[in-house]
Amino acid sequence: MRVLMIGDIVGSPGRKALLEYLPRLKRSHRPDVTVVNGENAADGRGITRGIAREFFGAGVDCITLGNHAWDKREIFDFIDKEDRLVRPANYPEGTPGRGYTRLTLSRGELVVVSLMGRSFLSSLDCPFRKADDILGRLKGNPAVLVDFHGETTSEKQAMGWYLDGRVSALVGTHTHVQTADERILPKGTAYLTDVGMVGPYDGVLGMNKDLILKKFLTQLPVRFEVGKGRVQFNAVVIDLDPSSGKASRIMRIRIDDDRPWFD
Amino acid sequence: MRVLMIGDIVGSPGRKALLEYLPRLKRSHRPDVTVVNGENAADGRGITRGIAREFFGAGVDCITLGNHAWDKREIFDFIDKEDRLVRPANYPEGTPGRGYTRLTLSRGELVVVSLMGRSFLSSLDCPFRKADDILGRLKGNPAVLVDFHGETTSEKQAMGWYLDGRVSALVGTHTHVQTADERILPKGTAYLTDVGMVGPYDGVLGMNKDLILKKFLTQLPVRFEVGKGRVQFNAVVIDLDPSSGKASRIMRIRIDDDRPWFD
Amino acid sequence: MRVLMIGDIVGSPGRKALLEYLPRLKRSHRPDVTVVNGENAADGRGITRGIAREFFGAGVDCITLGNHAWDKREIFDFIDKEDRLVRPANYPEGTPGRGYTRLTLSRGELVVVSLMGRSFLSSLDCPFRKADDILGRLKGNPAVLVDFHGETTSEKQAMGWYLDGRVSALVGTHTHVQTADERILPKGTAYLTDVGMVGPYDGVLGMNKDLILKKFLTQLPVRFEVGKGRVQFNAVVIDLDPSSGKASRIMRIRIDDDRPWFD
Amino acid sequence: MRVLMIGDIVGSPGRKALLEYLPRLKRSHRPDVTVVNGENAADGRGITRGIAREFFGAGVDCITLGNHAWDKREIFDFIDKEDRLVRPANYPEGTPGRGYTRLTLSRGELVVVSLMGRSFLSSLDCPFRKADDILGRLKGNPAVLVDFHGETTSEKQAMGWYLDGRVSALVGTHTHVQTADERILPKGTAYLTDVGMVGPYDGVLGMNKDLILKKFLTQLPVRFEVGKGRVQFNAVVIDLDPSSGKASRIMRIRIDDDRPWFD
Ligand SMILES: [Fe+2]
Ligand SMILES: [Fe+2]
Ligand SMILES: [Fe+2]
Ligand SMILES: [Fe+2]
Ligand SMILES: [Fe+2]
Ligand SMILES: [Fe+2]
Ligand SMILES: [Fe+2]
Ligand SMILES: [Fe+2]
Repeated sequence: MRVLMIGDIVGSPGRKALLEYLPRLKRSHRPDVTVVNGENAADGRGITRGIAREFFGAGVDCITLGNHAWDKREIFDFIDKEDRLVRPANYPEGTPGRGYTRLTLSRGELVVVSLMGRSFLSSLDCPFRKADDILGRLKGNPAVLVDFHGETTSEKQAMGWYLDGRVSALVGTHTHVQTADERILPKGTAYLTDVGMVGPYDGVLGMNKDLILKKFLTQLPVRFEVGKGRVQFNAVVIDLDPSSGKASRIMRIRIDDDRPWFD
Repeated sequence: MRVLMIGDIVGSPGRKALLEYLPRLKRSHRPDVTVVNGENAADGRGITRGIAREFFGAGVDCITLGNHAWDKREIFDFIDKEDRLVRPANYPEGTPGRGYTRLTLSRGELVVVSLMGRSFLSSLDCPFRKADDILGRLKGNPAVLVDFHGETTSEKQAMGWYLDGRVSALVGTHTHVQTADERILPKGTAYLTDVGMVGPYDGVLGMNKDLILKKFLTQLPVRFEVGKGRVQFNAVVIDLDPSSGKASRIMRIRIDDDRPWFD
Repeated sequence: MRVLMIGDIVGSPGRKALLEYLPRLKRSHRPDVTVVNGENAADGRGITRGIAREFFGAGVDCITLGNHAWDKREIFDFIDKEDRLVRPANYPEGTPGRGYTRLTLSRGELVVVSLMGRSFLSSLDCPFRKADDILGRLKGNPAVLVDFHGETTSEKQAMGWYLDGRVSALVGTHTHVQTADERILPKGTAYLTDVGMVGPYDGVLGMNKDLILKKFLTQLPVRFEVGKGRVQFNAVVIDLDPSSGKASRIMRIRIDDDRPWFD
Repeated sequence: MRVLMIGDIVGSPGRKALLEYLPRLKRSHRPDVTVVNGENAADGRGITRGIAREFFGAGVDCITLGNHAWDKREIFDFIDKEDRLVRPANYPEGTPGRGYTRLTLSRGELVVVSLMGRSFLSSLDCPFRKADDILGRLKGNPAVLVDFHGETTSEKQAMGWYLDGRVSALVGTHTHVQTADERILPKGTAYLTDVGMVGPYDGVLGMNKDLILKKFLTQLPVRFEVGKGRVQFNAVVIDLDPSSGKASRIMRIRIDDDRPWFD
C-alpha cells in the first residue's frame, strides 16, 4: 500500500498548489491513499467546509489537523459529521470531532491518527498514552499512519521510537519545514520529523515575510497574512505492507523553483 | 571559497564521527574552511579545552556554540583566549568570549558569526539588531557565515530573509535534525534552517532515547546521557565568491547507516 | 510626597470603579500624584484616546501600560503626543511613545518609569540595563516610581533588589492580584510585587470566569470578555521624601465587598 | 475545624522558622490540623526523609509538594510509605506517592489534595478533571483542603471558581509571595491565590538574591543557593464547618521584621 502524505496547506496559494500537483503526483506515484494536513488551509488559520469539500473532490482521502484546527469557527458545524476529518486525538474527552479514522481502501485498511505534542503547545492529554489507547482499540491489525503535530524535534523523535513497530508510519507536521531525516526505524515504522508545508515559497512558514519580520523586530501586535508569489510543495510517500503493517520505504517529495517537478 | 559547516557534535560518539569523517570529507569536497558547532561536544553539554584542541588539531578552523556553551564551567577559563571559539553574539554586553571572528584563509577572509534565537530560549538581546551591529563593523567586505542557533523555524526563516544579500550564508543549528530546505535566497545568501547533528543515530537528538522517553512519560526529573551505538553525520557545503560574498551553491551532507558514505 | 498608584483598570467596570473611588481616595489620602495602569482599560485589551482623556479628567496624572498597550490600534495615533502616557521602556529602540516621563508637582518632581519583564512575556531589551540607562539620564535627583509589569515573582523581586536605593518605589503590575509583601527595602525603596487590579470582583483577572474556565477545560480558542457585576479596587499609597527620593511608608489599599470602604 | 496551612518552606532558614513559629502559632490560633508545603525544604530543592520526620515531629499533620517534589532522589524511597506526604495528584498514572490523603482528626476528617497547574509548568494531566475525579471518589462528605501549586494567577483563580462549593478551601503555592486576595467564594470555599513562603526575607523567593540577579543579568547558568539572614513566615488560617464542609473564615498570617509577631 502506498501512502501519500502532504504537509500543512497554507492559504489559497497552498490550495492552488495542491490542486495543481496532486493529479500529477498521483499519475507518477500512484498512491493508494492521500492524506493532507489542512490546519492552515483557510487564510493560514483553520479550515472551512468548502475547502474540505474541495480537497476531497480533488482526490484527498483524509484531512488531518493541528493546533490551528479551530481557527475558523464553522469547523464546529461540520467536524462531527465528516469522518474523513481528523483532529489531534489528545484534546480532552468531549472535544468535537475524532482523533483517528479508518479508511477502507482497495488494498486494505488504513487508520489515520492525529496526535499533538505538548512542548510549547497547548496543555493537552499525554499523546503517548493516547497513542497506546487508540492502538489498543484497533481491531484486525490495520496499517496505521500517525500525523504527529509538534513543535520540538525531541518530542517528535521520542514519539517515533515509542511507536516503532506499532504503527506503519509516523510523520510530523507543524514546523512547516521539511526535515531530511526520513528513515525506517528498526522495528519497521517509517519516520520523518516534519513533512513540510504547501504554499508560498518566499514567506516565513507560508506567511508574508515582512509582517513576520515586523513582529520579531518590534514585538508589537501584527496581523499576519498568507504570502504571495511562487509556491513550494512538500510531501512524503510511504510504502507499507498492509498485512504486516510494516513500512518498506519512505521517500520525501519537495517541489519548488529550486527543485522543479518534471512529469 | 568552499565552506564546510558541520552541525552540533554530540558527546564522544559525535567526536569520534567527526574525527572519522572530517578527513574523508576534506579529501572529497576540499573545503577551504571547516566550521563546527561544538555546544554539545562534552557529554552532550558544553565543551572543554581539550575537546576544542582536539577539534582544531583535526582540521577544524572555527567552533561555534549555542545555549549549551556554558555547561562545562571550564569554558570560562579559555573562551576569552581562543579566538576561533565563537558564542552567540547577542548575549549581553560583558559576556565572556566573542560573538564573531575573522578567519584569514588562503582564498580570502571569512567572518563567522554566532547568533541565538529568543523564541523558547534565553532572554537575550535582539539577534536581528545584533546582526546589523556586527555587519556594520566589518571592514573590507569579507564573506560572512552566520550560525543561527534557534528553536523555531519561523525565527530562523525570518533571520534568513533579514540577512539575505548581506551575508554569504545563514545556517541554523540547535534542533539537531537536518532540514531539507537548502536554497540560495534571491539576493545571494545560502540558507538552511538546520544543519543537523553529529552523533548517535538511534537516540533522541543524540541522547539516550529511553531516558528522554522516560522524561516525556513521567514528567519527573531524569538525568540525560548521550546515546550509544551507530552514528549519523550532518553537515552542509557552501560555495561562495569571496570577492562579492555571494553564495553560488549549497549542498547538504547526510551520512548514516541508511545513507552510507562511499569515498 | 504621597503617591497613589492604582493597578490595572479592567474594562468598563474598572473604569467606573476608578471614577467612583478616586475622588473618595483623594479626599481621605490626599495624594500629591495619582498613577494608574491602563493597559486593560478598553474592553480588557488596550486603551483608547477617549479613555485616557477620561482618566486625566478624573484626576489621574499619569497612565502606565504593559503588554496589552497596543491592543487598540488607535494608540499609535496618540501615544507620541501624550507625555503622561508611559509604555514599557524596554521595547526596542524606535517603539512609539516613551518609557518614562517627568511630572512636575507642587511638592517636587516625580519620574514615572514603566518596565516590562521578559519571563513568559515578550522578547524585549533587558529591563535591568534599561533601568540603569534611564536612571543615568535623570538630572536633578528626582523621586522615581517604577511600574514593573511582569509575570513572575522572581523577576519582580530581583528588580526590586536591583533598584533598591536607586528609585523611590518599585511596584509590580500584570498579574491582577494584589500581593501582601509591601515593604521598604533596606536602602529606602518602597516595594510591592503586584498592586492588583481594578474591575470585576467575581471574574478571573477581571474577565468573565466562565469563558476562562472554558479555555482551561477545552484548550480551544475562546473569545474572552470582561466580567460583570460587583467590583474590586486595588492600589497602593507610598510616602516619599522628594529631596532624598527615599520612601518612608507603603500601604496597600484593597476595596471589595469583603473589604468595603467607609469614608 | 481550624486549618493552618503554611507555605513553601525554603531550606534550613525556612525549617528553623517553622520550628520556631509553629508552636507559638499553635498556642495562639489552636488549629486542629497543620499542613505545610515542603517542596523546597531541602536546600531549596525537594525534601528528605529526615526533614519530613522533623516536620511531623514538630506537629505538622500533612506535607504537600509541588514541581520540586522530586529534586532529592531519596523521595522515591519513602514517598510510597508515608501517607501524610502528598504530591500533585495530576502527575500521570503510575507516579510514586499519592495525590491526596485523608486525615482523621478529633473534630472530623480532612482530605488534603495537591494539584499542580500546567501554565508555564510541566505537561501534566488536566488538574480540573483530576479534581473532579478525586472529589467523586470521596465518601462521607469530608472537609477538603486543596493546595493548588501554580504559576499564573489566572489558572489559580479559575480553579478556585471551578471548585467553589465543592471543597472547603483552595489555596495556592509556588510563587512564594503571599497574595492579599483571601476571601470566601460565594458557595463557601475559602480562597487565596498564594500562601507565600517560609524562609529568607531578603532573598528572591528565598534564594540568594545576588545569584538570582546574576542569572537575570547574564543569562548564564548559575547555581542557586538558599539565602541567609532574617526570615519571613507566611501562612493562612481557615475555619470550616466539618459537617457541611463550608468555610466561614480565612485569615492570612505574615510574619517578618516589618510585621513582627507578638505572642
Ligand atoms: Fe501548520
Ligand atoms: Fe500547527
Ligand atoms: Fe545542540
Ligand atoms: Fe542548542
Ligand atoms: Fe493587566
Ligand atoms: Fe499585562
Ligand atoms: Fe516552592
Ligand atoms: Fe514550586
